[in-house]
Amino acid sequence: MYRNFKFEIISRHEKARLGLLYTPHGLIKTPAFIFCGTKASVKGISPRQLKEAETQIILSNTYHLFSYPGSAYIKQRGGLHKFMGWNGPMFTDSGGFQIFSLGHGSVADEIKGRRSGISTLTKINENGATFKSYWDGSEQLLTPEKSIQVQRDLGADLIVAFDECTPYHSDKKYTEKSMERSHRWEKRSLDEFVRGNDYSQAMYGIVQGGVHEDLRKRSAEFVSSNPFFATAIGGTLGATKEQMYEVVEMAMNGLDISRPIHLLGIGGISDIFRGVALGIDTFDCVHPTRIARHGGALVKAAYRDDKRREHINLKRTEYATDDNPIEMDCDCPTCRSFSKAYLHYLLKAKELLALQAIAVHNIHFMNKLMAEIRHGLETNSLEAVKSEWC
Amino acid sequence: MYRNFKFEIISRHEKARLGLLYTPHGLIKTPAFIFCGTKASVKGISPRQLKEAETQIILSNTYHLFSYPGSAYIKQRGGLHKFMGWNGPMFTDSGGFQIFSLGHGSVADEIKGRRSGISTLTKINENGATFKSYWDGSEQLLTPEKSIQVQRDLGADLIVAFDECTPYHSDKKYTEKSMERSHRWEKRSLDEFVRGNDYSQAMYGIVQGGVHEDLRKRSAEFVSSNPFFATAIGGTLGATKEQMYEVVEMAMNGLDISRPIHLLGIGGISDIFRGVALGIDTFDCVHPTRIARHGGALVKAAYRDDKRREHINLKRTEYATDDNPIEMDCDCPTCRSFSKAYLHYLLKAKELLALQAIAVHNIHFMNKLMAEIRHGLETNSLEAVKSEWC
Repeated sequence: MYRNFKFEIISRHEKARLGLLYTPHGLIKTPAFIFCGTKASVKGISPRQLKEAETQIILSNTYHLFSYPGSAYIKQRGGLHKFMGWNGPMFTDSGGFQIFSLGHGSVADEIKGRRSGISTLTKINENGATFKSYWDGSEQLLTPEKSIQVQRDLGADLIVAFDECTPYHSDKKYTEKSMERSHRWEKRSLDEFVRGNDYSQAMYGIVQGGVHEDLRKRSAEFVSSNPFFATAIGGTLGATKEQMYEVVEMAMNGLDISRPIHLLGIGGISDIFRGVALGIDTFDCVHPTRIARHGGALVKAAYRDDKRREHINLKRTEYATDDNPIEMDCDCPTCRSFSKAYLHYLLKAKELLALQAIAVHNIHFMNKLMAEIRHGLETNSLEAVKSEWC
Repeated sequence: MYRNFKFEIISRHEKARLGLLYTPHGLIKTPAFIFCGTKASVKGISPRQLKEAETQIILSNTYHLFSYPGSAYIKQRGGLHKFMGWNGPMFTDSGGFQIFSLGHGSVADEIKGRRSGISTLTKINENGATFKSYWDGSEQLLTPEKSIQVQRDLGADLIVAFDECTPYHSDKKYTEKSMERSHRWEKRSLDEFVRGNDYSQAMYGIVQGGVHEDLRKRSAEFVSSNPFFATAIGGTLGATKEQMYEVVEMAMNGLDISRPIHLLGIGGISDIFRGVALGIDTFDCVHPTRIARHGGALVKAAYRDDKRREHINLKRTEYATDDNPIEMDCDCPTCRSFSKAYLHYLLKAKELLALQAIAVHNIHFMNKLMAEIRHGLETNSLEAVKSEWC
């Protein structure tokens, strides 16, 4: 069923593991970070710059591309890899997260510029979800079958079953009903996947169940007992960091841990260390590229000006006369060329180069972080690595 | 006086010439194009990307940097080269063009014979020009001495004497008086330059005189009889292309042609061929990078869709399904990675990458154009080169 894919666990370190995830577009060394190229582009950054930063894998969002320019259009262009000029491994989500996070009016993760904050989900029933396109306001229907067909047109290596992303404020009763519907949707996703399987894609099931231990366990068992290639942990992870780790741990119980495990939407540095320790193999988050657009540069512990944050805000006045690079020991193109003073000036002068330069640093930073985590696992020195980065 | 600078004319081809312009930050093969990094940054493009495109020289605008962040600040940062991470040859203008073009209307409109915009020039007298800062509205005074001091702080290799950029709609009497004042200002600029000369910079005089043959000749003779390193042709060049070539030809009469000659603010492809034929060595213009931000990609004659324009507009619907690169035979990173369809999509989706990608193409294009012009001169085949590019 997944003959062109393989997940090899090289070594285990308590729950953490080092792995190799083989895809038709190349190998991913895990633990790995997946960068968000929401609308078929990592904002302001070229595939060449991503490669140069040793990026292993990127994702695009089905919801956005379904609304515009449409998956048939991208299929005609030869698929997402060819269209956007990225020939490495790629991931698409199912569209569910955006429909529901927008639909329920909560903070919309990757919607920039258009209609964000407005409720766009118009109907949800057994068949699927009806919503208004962020692009032109037209009414659209996404079903499990449609989500898989769209993801097949897009052609990413790793795709995800369609689910309802249950909101945090739902009660347990709704969360349970929603989880059960998600399971039915995931089964329909799998059926649709099998019908069209040409061995160029592999599918993730999603664990739902909110913050409830028994539901998470049931959901993990459901996913593990069905022939998904891998597992993604989705849905609400709670309201606090501590709750998040608890929920992830709950979700891990009952999971088939021979499969790759992805934690959806998490990308903080200390969160990644905690996730790796719990057995997570891949992470994704808009954070590194989004904060760049607001002047936020990721830095290791030694370079922080506020111990509560994992980045520095280059717009702050103190950086106007700081002639050092973002990190003295960083060898990314930005740190080799530009001082914090120059980046501060570019932000103040609203010069476009600021966004590119800071994003390039953050991408190098995340890839270096993951490489050092892998090295830390290999050499049993993860704690030392953690103390440098956190 | 200019001991670290030299201009060597390698060969002459009627009025055109091939040259080598030596500066402390490197050699410029002429004819050459100077890219505009108005506010200490070529919009959206890193110095590395400029180098990769074989860019020889860039400029920054004194007017903008004087208003913000100020030249003392940039001097504290080690000068413009170090501040912006560009270690090649650099040019700054005197600030005059922006003060007066903004002062008499919107940027460049008036000088090119179009009327519009708001006036920011508040006073002009023998001492200098008083204007409102574009940055914070504060009143600022720029005199010849101040312009040279500011340019010294910025530290570009090639700097320009302060002049009044006489508007097109001035009558001959005003144009003559203005030219005479410019000459007095240029002498004061030269005196200030000599007082502080540390041999790291070389100064251009500017030829004024509007569209009047006798005034242009007098101005050319004034500039040539004073110890400027090089000559820039400034002021209004008339309202039409044909008048522009006539005015440039007038300005060339009486010039010391052993010096480098720069034509300010001109960067069209056919204009460059005409300018080179008249003996111009360097050109500058915001055009290649500005049109990129509006979806305009420069193309050789064979790829144009509208023979009246030297670029294609990638926002046009016909490009939505065009899977070829901007130019089939272009080896720039953009043409090697992206189709016109993808660039069209990025523009429609308002993705930042579009601006970077198209600007990178246009910069490669201009540098390749100038390299082929130099090769055409060397091999006596300029007409063949021209027919491919125009």
